[in-house]
Amino acid sequence: MRLLDAIHIPADLKKVAPEQLPQVADELRHELIDAVSMAGGHFGAGLGVVELTTALHYVFDTPADRIIWDVGHQAYPHKILTGRRDRIRTIRKPGGISGFAKRSESEYDPFGAGHSSTSISAALGMAVARDLTGGANHVIAVIGDGAMSAGMAYEALNNAGALRSRLIVVLNDNDMSIAPPVGALDTHLRDLVSTRGEQASLFAGLGMRYVGPVDGHDVVALAALFADLRDGPAEPVLVHCVTEKGKGYGPAEAAPDKGHAMARFDKATGVQAKAKASAPTYTAVFAKALIAEAQGDDRIVAINAAMPSGTGLDQFEKAFPARCFDVGIAEQHAVTFAAGLATEGLKPFCAIYSTFLQRGYDQLVHDVALQNLPVRFAIDRAGLVGADGATHAGAFDLAYLCCLPHMTVMAPADEAELMHMIATAAAHDGGPIAVRFPRGEGTGAALPERGQVLPIGKGRIVREGTDVALLSLGPRLAPALAAAETLAAQGISVTVADARFAKPLDTGLIRALAARHRLLVTLEEGAAGGFGAQVLTCLANEGLLRAGLDVRTLTLPDTFQDHDDPARQYETAGLAAGDIVRLVAAQFDRALAAE
Amino acid sequence: MRLLDAIHIPADLKKVAPEQLPQVADELRHELIDAVSMAGGHFGAGLGVVELTTALHYVFDTPADRIIWDVGHQAYPHKILTGRRDRIRTIRKPGGISGFAKRSESEYDPFGAGHSSTSISAALGMAVARDLTGGANHVIAVIGDGAMSAGMAYEALNNAGALRSRLIVVLNDNDMSIAPPVGALDTHLRDLVSTRGEQASLFAGLGMRYVGPVDGHDVVALAALFADLRDGPAEPVLVHCVTEKGKGYGPAEAAPDKGHAMARFDKATGVQAKAKASAPTYTAVFAKALIAEAQGDDRIVAINAAMPSGTGLDQFEKAFPARCFDVGIAEQHAVTFAAGLATEGLKPFCAIYSTFLQRGYDQLVHDVALQNLPVRFAIDRAGLVGADGATHAGAFDLAYLCCLPHMTVMAPADEAELMHMIATAAAHDGGPIAVRFPRGEGTGAALPERGQVLPIGKGRIVREGTDVALLSLGPRLAPALAAAETLAAQGISVTVADARFAKPLDTGLIRALAARHRLLVTLEEGAAGGFGAQVLTCLANEGLLRAGLDVRTLTLPDTFQDHDDPARQYETAGLAAGDIVRLVAAQFDRALAAE
Repeated sequence: MRLLDAIHIPADLKKVAPEQLPQVADELRHELIDAVSMAGGHFGAGLGVVELTTALHYVFDTPADRIIWDVGHQAYPHKILTGRRDRIRTIRKPGGISGFAKRSESEYDPFGAGHSSTSISAALGMAVARDLTGGANHVIAVIGDGAMSAGMAYEALNNAGALRSRLIVVLNDNDMSIAPPVGALDTHLRDLVSTRGEQASLFAGLGMRYVGPVDGHDVVALAALFADLRDGPAEPVLVHCVTEKGKGYGPAEAAPDKGHAMARFDKATGVQAKAKASAPTYTAVFAKALIAEAQGDDRIVAINAAMPSGTGLDQFEKAFPARCFDVGIAEQHAVTFAAGLATEGLKPFCAIYSTFLQRGYDQLVHDVALQNLPVRFAIDRAGLVGADGATHAGAFDLAYLCCLPHMTVMAPADEAELMHMIATAAAHDGGPIAVRFPRGEGTGAALPERGQVLPIGKGRIVREGTDVALLSLGPRLAPALAAAETLAAQGISVTVADARFAKPLDTGLIRALAARHRLLVTLEEGAAGGFGAQVLTCLANEGLLRAGLDVRTLTLPDTFQDHDDPARQYETAGLAAGDIVRLVAAQFDRALAAE
Repeated sequence: MRLLDAIHIPADLKKVAPEQLPQVADELRHELIDAVSMAGGHFGAGLGVVELTTALHYVFDTPADRIIWDVGHQAYPHKILTGRRDRIRTIRKPGGISGFAKRSESEYDPFGAGHSSTSISAALGMAVARDLTGGANHVIAVIGDGAMSAGMAYEALNNAGALRSRLIVVLNDNDMSIAPPVGALDTHLRDLVSTRGEQASLFAGLGMRYVGPVDGHDVVALAALFADLRDGPAEPVLVHCVTEKGKGYGPAEAAPDKGHAMARFDKATGVQAKAKASAPTYTAVFAKALIAEAQGDDRIVAINAAMPSGTGLDQFEKAFPARCFDVGIAEQHAVTFAAGLATEGLKPFCAIYSTFLQRGYDQLVHDVALQNLPVRFAIDRAGLVGADGATHAGAFDLAYLCCLPHMTVMAPADEAELMHMIATAAAHDGGPIAVRFPRGEGTGAALPERGQVLPIGKGRIVREGTDVALLSLGPRLAPALAAAETLAAQGISVTVADARFAKPLDTGLIRALAARHRLLVTLEEGAAGGFGAQVLTCLANEGLLRAGLDVRTLTLPDTFQDHDDPARQYETAGLAAGDIVRLVAAQFDRALAAE
C-alpha cells in the first residue's frame, strides 16, 4: 500500500500526481476487500465506487465541500480516505464505526443516511444555505440508480432544477439496487447508456444539465470531469456515472447481488463464514406461511419495495411469479398500489420493514386506514436490529399504527405465532391488519404446516401466577418467561400473558390481570407511546387505576441506540430478563411493604 | 338545463348525440357555478374539468370502468353526473356529501382522496387486479400537473411504465396547483405545450406512451380521443390534457388562485359571502410571529409544500422573498431539504399541515430526529378541521411525534401562546421542535409584538383548585376553563393546567397535580396514543398510580369523523365543555362515594 499508507485524510490524496490515481484506487480497493473479508459488511456498492470516491476527494476540498453518500452502503472507501482507515475493520461491530455515513462520526460525513434517496434533498438544502450565507463551497450528492426510483429523489430534482443552485448530483448507475432495479427508469437509463446520452433525458426534463454517460472506473477521466464541473458554471448538473457493483473482486462480480453485503469471507475464494442458524428466521417463516396461505387462496398477492430477499418475498415470487410485485424503492406507491388491489377484492400483503414503512405512513393513514381497506402489512425488522443500528431500528410502528382507527395490529411471540398471524391476516377482510415481527432467528418453536386463524383482539395466558402479571407483546415473551422462572425461585408468583394484539386490546384479559395482581408490567419491543401506552389508556378509562394499581411499561428507551449485538442492544435498553426481574422484585417488595 | 335534467347517471349521458356534448358541458358548468355559488366549496378545479368529465363519462362505462379523480377537488362535475346532482348543494355541509371523492358515498367513486397524487398508484393497483382476475374494464386516473410534482406520482408512473398494464393517466394540466406550480416539471410541461409535444417527454422516459397536448375544453375531440384509447392497444398511456382552472366563470378566471375554493358567492359578481372574523386565525398569527422573529435573525428560513397561502407563508415570502421556499407537493423532500439547511446553521421552519406531514414522516424520523437537527415544524390544521373532513383531520401527529427521541412538541392554548412558541422554536437550537396548532380563528387573546421564549418542558397552572385537575394540551384549554366554571357552581373545585409541551413532559407539574387531586383528566385534540398516553406512561413509571389515582384521558375517538362544523365535530368527539363537566362530575361523585 505504497500510496495509500501516506493518505490519512483527503488533503494527503491531493499530493498525488494525477497519473498515480489508478494506483491509489487499486490500493483502496484492496484495502476494502481485505477489510470486509475480516469484518463483513456492505461490500458490492463500495467496490463499485472506488474510482469515483478517489476522484471526488482528489478534486474537491472536503470537508468544506460536502459529499453526501446516498444510503451510505457505498461510503466504505470514503471512510478509508477520511481518517477512518484504522477503524475500518471495526465497521458495524459493537463499539466500532457505523456501516453508514454518520455526522457524529466524522466532519467528512455532512449527512448521515441508512435509508435511501435522501441525498439530493439534503444536498440542495446545503447548497441553498451556502447561497444564502455567501459561501463558495461545492455540494455533491452521490446516489445510486436504485435509489433514484424513490419519489423523494424526484421531488428533490424537480426542486433543484427550478432553484438552479450550484449542485452536482452523481448518479452512480450500477444497474442494481440490492436486487436488480425494476422500474421504467431503469430502461431509460439503459437507453441513455446505449445511445451515449444522445436522447433528451428524463433529467433534462427536470431541469438538470445532463452529463454522461461516463465510465465510473476511469479515475483519471473522472477527476478531469469533476475539475471541469468544479470550475464551470454554477448550475445544477447530473453526472451519469456508469459503474459496476462488486467491481474488481471476482466472487462479488459473479454473485447475483454483486456482493451487496457479506459476512467475513476468505479473500481467495469469497466463501463467507456464516454462522450456523439454530432456528429459521422470522423472515423465512413469514415467506413459508404466506406461500401456504396463497396456495389455497388465489386472491393473495404480495408487494415489496426493492427488497425481495430481505422480506422473503423472493420465495413467494418463485411460487407465484404473477402475484408478486417489486415496485422499487417506492414505499408510498407500494402502500397505495396495495390499496388499489384491495378495492378490487384481492388480498394484498405489503411486506415492508418497520422503519421503511415510515415512508408510506400517509398512504397507510389516508388511503388504507381511512377507507378501511383490507391491506395486510407484514412488518419485518420491528424492534432493534443489531449491526444496522439506529437508522434501521423498527421502534415506532406500534405508536404510529395503534393510534389509527380501523387498524388491527399483531405481534408474534415466536415464529409459530407468526404463522398463525399470517393466517389471521389472510382471513381478515374487515379492514387493514398488520403483523410486526423482528429481525433474525425465531425461538425454535415447532412450526405447524399452516397457521390457525386467531380470534381478533384476544391474548393468551402463558403462565399462571398470583402476585405479578407480565403482559408481553411480541418476542419479549421469552425473557418474560425466563424472568418469571427466576422470580418464582425468589418466592414471587408471576402470571405471564401474551397480548398478541396491540390493537384492538384484549380488555377482558387486561381487566383480569389488573384485578388479580399487585403489579402489572407491560413489555414491548418498541418506543413509549405504543402498546404499553394503549394498555394504560385502557386501564385509565375503564376505571381500573382508581383503586390503586402498580403498573409499569417496559419499552425501548427514549434514545436512538447505536449498532451492537441485538441481545446486547436489548440489555442496553433495559428489556432483558434480568431487567424484568430487578424491576419486578423491587416493585413487589415495595408493594408488599405498603400493605 | 334541457339536456342535463335528463342525465341522472352516466348511462343517461350516453343517449346524447356527440354534437350535443358541448351543450351538456355548458349546462354542467352552469349547474356547477350555481351550486358552488350557493354552497361554497372547491370550484376552480371543477370548472376546468367540465368537458373532460363529460367526455370521460360519455366514452367509458362507469362504474365498471374506474375513474379516479386525484385529490377530488375536481370531482364536483363528476358528482353531478353520477347521481348526486340533487345533493350537490349540500357539499361539505354538515350531513351533506363530501367535498372529495369517497368510496362510501357512491359506486362511481372507486377511490377516495383528499390528499394529492395518490390516483396513479391506486389506478395501477386496480389495473393489475383486473389483469389478474381476467377482467376487461378500463382504469383512468385524472391527475393535475401540481399533483404530479409529488414523488408518489413518479413512483407510480415508474412502476406503471414497467408493468405495462392497460392504464390511462389523464394529466390535467391547468398550470396551477392551489398556487402556481413551482418545480422544473412545470417548465417541461410548458415546453411540451409550446412544441406540441414534439420533444421526448419525461413521461416517455418513464415508459408511458405520451399523447398530447390536447385541448381539454374541446369535449367532442376529447370524446373521440378517449374512444380511440378505449379501443386501442392495451398499454399505459399518458394523455396530456391542457385545461384552464376556473374556465368559464370570469371572476374565477381572474382570481390569482383561479377560484380554487370559494365561500358561497354572488353569481353575477363573484363576490364571496365571507363571515366576519372575530379573531385572527392561528395561521395568520403564525405568519406574523415568524416574520417578527425573522426580522431579528437572518438565519430563519421557511419551507412549505405547495401551500404558501394555506400555511401563511405567503406573508413571510412578501417580507423575505429569498428566505422562503415552496418546494411543490413534496413533503418528503421538504423535510430533508430543511434538514440540509439546518446542518449549515440555518434555522428552517417547515410549515406543513398535520395530516400532510404524514408524507414526510420517515424524513422527520431518519433525517431530522435521528441526527438531532434543529428543524422547526409549524404544524397547522392539528385536530379536527371542519368541512374538509377526515382526510384533512390532524389527529395523529401527537402520537407519531411524541414517540421520537430528541423531539420537542408544543401546542398553544391560544394565539398568544402560539407567538411564544414560535419564539421558543426560533431560539431552540438543540434539536428538532414542533408546534401544532389548529385550523381557524384564535380565541381573541391579546397579542404581544413578539413572543417570549418559554422554558422547555414546563407547563403552567391557569386556575387553582383542590378536587379535580384538568391537564390540557392546546386549545382544549378554553372548554376546560368553561367546564371548571360550571363545576365550581356545582361545588367541585377544579385546577386547570396548560401543559404547553407534550414532549418533554412537565413531570413536576404532573406529579403535583396527581398528588393534590382526586381525579386527573388529560385533554388533547388528537387520537389516543399521544399526550394523554405519554402522561399515563409518566405516571405509571414514576410510581404515581400505585396509591390509587383516578385518571382519564380525553382524546379524539377511535374513528375517522366526517366533515361537519368544527365545534360540532368536537361535540361528537366528546371533547366539548359539557362532556368534560359530565365526566368530571360522574367520576368525582364516585371518588367521593368511595372515600
